[in-house]
Amino acid sequence: MSELKKKKQVHLNVFFRAAGHHASAWRHPKTTPELSFDFDYYKKLAQTAERGLLDSLFMADGYVGTGRRLEPFTLLSALSAVTTNIGLIGTVGTTYNEPFHVARKFASLDHISGGRAGWNIVTGHTDTTAYNFGKESHLEHSKRYKWAEEFVEVTKQLWDSWEQEALVFDKQTGVQFDESKLHEINYRGDTYSVKGPLNIPRPPQGYPVLVQAGSSESGRELAARTAEVIFTAQPTLEEGQLFYTDVKSRLAKYGREKDQLLILPGFSPIIGNTAAEAQELEDELNSFHDANEAVARLSERFGIDLTGYPLDGPIPSIIDAKGIDSVNGSKSRHQLILDMLRSDTSLTLRQVVNKLASARGHLTFTGTPIQAADVIEKWINNDAADGFNLMPPIYPDGLEIFVDKVVPELQNRGIFRTEYEGASLRENLGLSYPANSFQAKLTSAK
Amino acid sequence: MSELKKKKQVHLNVFFRAAGHHASAWRHPKTTPELSFDFDYYKKLAQTAERGLLDSLFMADGYVGTGRRLEPFTLLSALSAVTTNIGLIGTVGTTYNEPFHVARKFASLDHISGGRAGWNIVTGHTDTTAYNFGKESHLEHSKRYKWAEEFVEVTKQLWDSWEQEALVFDKQTGVQFDESKLHEINYRGDTYSVKGPLNIPRPPQGYPVLVQAGSSESGRELAARTAEVIFTAQPTLEEGQLFYTDVKSRLAKYGREKDQLLILPGFSPIIGNTAAEAQELEDELNSFHDANEAVARLSERFGIDLTGYPLDGPIPSIIDAKGIDSVNGSKSRHQLILDMLRSDTSLTLRQVVNKLASARGHLTFTGTPIQAADVIEKWINNDAADGFNLMPPIYPDGLEIFVDKVVPELQNRGIFRTEYEGASLRENLGLSYPANSFQAKLTSAK
Repeated sequence: MSELKKKKQVHLNVFFRAAGHHASAWRHPKTTPELSFDFDYYKKLAQTAERGLLDSLFMADGYVGTGRRLEPFTLLSALSAVTTNIGLIGTVGTTYNEPFHVARKFASLDHISGGRAGWNIVTGHTDTTAYNFGKESHLEHSKRYKWAEEFVEVTKQLWDSWEQEALVFDKQTGVQFDESKLHEINYRGDTYSVKGPLNIPRPPQGYPVLVQAGSSESGRELAARTAEVIFTAQPTLEEGQLFYTDVKSRLAKYGREKDQLLILPGFSPIIGNTAAEAQELEDELNSFHDANEAVARLSERFGIDLTGYPLDGPIPSIIDAKGIDSVNGSKSRHQLILDMLRSDTSLTLRQVVNKLASARGHLTFTGTPIQAADVIEKWINNDAADGFNLMPPIYPDGLEIFVDKVVPELQNRGIFRTEYEGASLRENLGLSYPANSFQAKLTSAK
Repeated sequence: MSELKKKKQVHLNVFFRAAGHHASAWRHPKTTPELSFDFDYYKKLAQTAERGLLDSLFMADGYVGTGRRLEPFTLLSALSAVTTNIGLIGTVGTTYNEPFHVARKFASLDHISGGRAGWNIVTGHTDTTAYNFGKESHLEHSKRYKWAEEFVEVTKQLWDSWEQEALVFDKQTGVQFDESKLHEINYRGDTYSVKGPLNIPRPPQGYPVLVQAGSSESGRELAARTAEVIFTAQPTLEEGQLFYTDVKSRLAKYGREKDQLLILPGFSPIIGNTAAEAQELEDELNSFHDANEAVARLSERFGIDLTGYPLDGPIPSIIDAKGIDSVNGSKSRHQLILDMLRSDTSLTLRQVVNKLASARGHLTFTGTPIQAADVIEKWINNDAADGFNLMPPIYPDGLEIFVDKVVPELQNRGIFRTEYEGASLRENLGLSYPANSFQAKLTSAK
């Protein structure tokens, strides 16, 4: 038993996405895309994930047509009322929001859920987003990260603006709040200017768990300074190891311990009770896949028109013409796809888009529950991951088979919990409780 | 039976507020202010309100310290998961928000709740709010209303940007959306510029129920043009009648029917099983009341320092020195208090603040359940109200006694439902389903 305890534990987040993560998931007979905006659909998924003792569930976000989905704060709050332990991570972009609104909504979600909120900090991708917010173009990549840094700094100060003991409610003396424990932050930076205090007490977790998903140079630095969980796309063990080592080595300069930033690569396992069954599912999903549409999407991403080229011919050389520096979207995902395109010149355009269709460049896998557990164990024992961001190819089946077949296997191997460690997401992830900067200042002044 | 059906029906909204609406509610032995940020507390209140078949529950909002509370979207969404019929109305200000965010969150709440969302449109009150959003001062009153009008126009267009049949999900043909039924709105106004479409389908109700709470001249016009419910403060039947007649008479010029804007004055009933019991509760609540603090709050509201004057002396004449036009906060509430101060010169400062303490200028009442039902019936039968915005002096008791004792009395009189009329808030309020402007344009073009 004590030997089992010593094994490195897997952390598992599940990435919600209407019908599933395969680009053709919605066409599979077992999925119900017509329920994409139905609360009960997500309620069942959340309860399945909680039955599997997963650390958290995660909602991506976006502000343009292609990101058609329920809004994270509303969905996660509703899910908090029908679950008890699972963490609730929502993506909220910094570029088109106000720190006060975001600090407040996360504090509220953290109170409502009893300390289960997590914030996936993103900076946004496209000009199309800008047009929905009265802007002419999307903010340039490095500027977005500068804004994001400042944004996170302001929200942290707002969360700290209430010391834990600020609430008094002394019916005898008539004192509701200890005003000396409520602090104006009087923040004045390059981009934001916020007086404070926040109008809601500090979140039960101090701060929601801070998550970061950009893997570019700026993204890695922001993660090393700020994030507690990082979602990343690493298609091979070797690439996973390079990324893991690089990001973990950046922590020391910010005075942080290695176990205070969990690295969770995306993982899309196509699982069958037998290898043949899994392969059948993969083939079935690929049969729905429209390669022409995928080429159009890829073209959009690169800002290069690939739609005229033969699907079964080689990769057009124009891909090389535009370097990563000219890109103002998600730099790391561009690099990943470029690497894929350049490293294997034998690939056809169709093969590339099929590869991307299954999980948009994330680690994919087709096999049995035992084999899935093998992959997970291998990555966590070889410094490539602290766990995974699960991306089931189809919902709900892909999640159910994982919970029913893979989770027990991980538990048998002693690398996954058999009950939740605590009530808060922070406790389940083994993350420390963040000190309040105002209290710290006062203590050091004494 | 058919005679009962003809009686004008009461609509009842309940206004949530931590310990209650009396300024000293939190000091009453039966309240639990320490649960102000606890989800289960509000869950029980919501379920009590739904047991009483109330039309809706309502959360106010604000962005400064004095508005300390859970954030409406997160709380209402969580409550939607533990209720089935009651409407969920949230205040969201227009001045410091983006139409795209607000349209989207309400659409999401409306989907999650199965058509139970309502939006109380406010423009915000104070400079203190501005400082939390990088602004130097609060937008001037008439400009705020101009912004608000444009804001509501943009959100409506965004909700209309998906026609009802835009979702296709045809697994055979591979068509997810009928793109011809998704519309860019390309809105370019004085204040906002939004391309669209929204990234979520039209709310089940078409639009959430639109609520307005300002009763100034600009507020009345915005309500007559846009609102479907109006929350207002009318301290006497006569004032209620004047307001009711005035607002209803403004509807015709916008081509609207009188029953498509429900007027719900605030009503704070202190109820006891006997008149003596009710009086005892009122006295008890007043005994906790700090008149000096209330004078300070009143001073803040008027921007005139009243704190130096004797509590039991007459109203200082400086009140008259500042007219309503110089006020940049909530004009109608100022007018109401000024009227109160000027109409009865025999009042002392203490008497005025006690009066305001019980429900901030709203209709108050102390008595039995039968007497409370009498007041309600009188107002709705004399063109002073279509129902009430209930403001229980203390929670949960004030709501429970209303649901257990007043609701059955209203039902016995045939003026309140014995079951919900429908699943959506719109159905329960008898409001029509808003046509989609894009569909209307296409139809008229044919």
